[in-house]
Amino acid sequence: MEPRWKVARYEDIEAVTFGDEAPGVTIRRMIDEEFDGAPFYNLRMLEIAPGGSTPDHAHANEHENFIFSGSGEVMIDGDWHPLSEGDVVFVPPGVRHQYRNAGNEPFRFLCGVPVPRLTADA
Amino acid sequence: MEPRWKVARYEDIEAVTFGDEAPGVTIRRMIDEEFDGAPFYNLRMLEIAPGGSTPDHAHANEHENFIFSGSGEVMIDGDWHPLSEGDVVFVPPGVRHQYRNAGNEPFRFLCGVPVPRLTADA
Repeated sequence: MEPRWKVARYEDIEAVTFGDEAPGVTIRRMIDEEFDGAPFYNLRMLEIAPGGSTPDHAHANEHENFIFSGSGEVMIDGDWHPLSEGDVVFVPPGVRHQYRNAGNEPFRFLCGVPVPRLTADA
Repeated sequence: MEPRWKVARYEDIEAVTFGDEAPGVTIRRMIDEEFDGAPFYNLRMLEIAPGGSTPDHAHANEHENFIFSGSGEVMIDGDWHPLSEGDVVFVPPGVRHQYRNAGNEPFRFLCGVPVPRLTADA
């Protein structure tokens, strides 16, 4: 689709749950190729409830994260790092990673990924 | 350069000022092709001091923004929109835009842009 300008509150964008592979995790597709015509990358808000986590996995696309609220941890290539509001995380392509909530409040962070066509051949 | 993982606090990344075209504005290149090997897009933190603004301009690359703190406004194609923490802004390629602080505290927002090679022919 043609890119369309957008101004929105993140809470007003639908929060979609994952299955059992990511307990307590929702994703909001805030700026997206499908909905907004984003040319190169999709910007999402991930929210992990207390006790929740994403899967330990790796894939061809990188992640660019910014911690918005709460406290959590990220595993990169086997090592865990504490995270809080204002932290930045870059997970390169192909590197194992996992996120988890480490507190009693929701852990919210931005997660940017390239649109699928850019990494389809990776 | 090869992509390298990174965990950092945004305040620890150098804040660079602009010239007279963007009074009161600094940029922190948080995740960048040059410094981190980001494959497709650069994630920056913009901070605008009270009274400051970015230029009224347009360019071939889009912006994907998320408001981190403070209050401000964005002009898109001639119309101004109020912004506060948790707001999302998508400025498509080629569209006129400008940001300004509308309060008495620093106005901070994330600004993602594709790496230059992706829009070099645009």
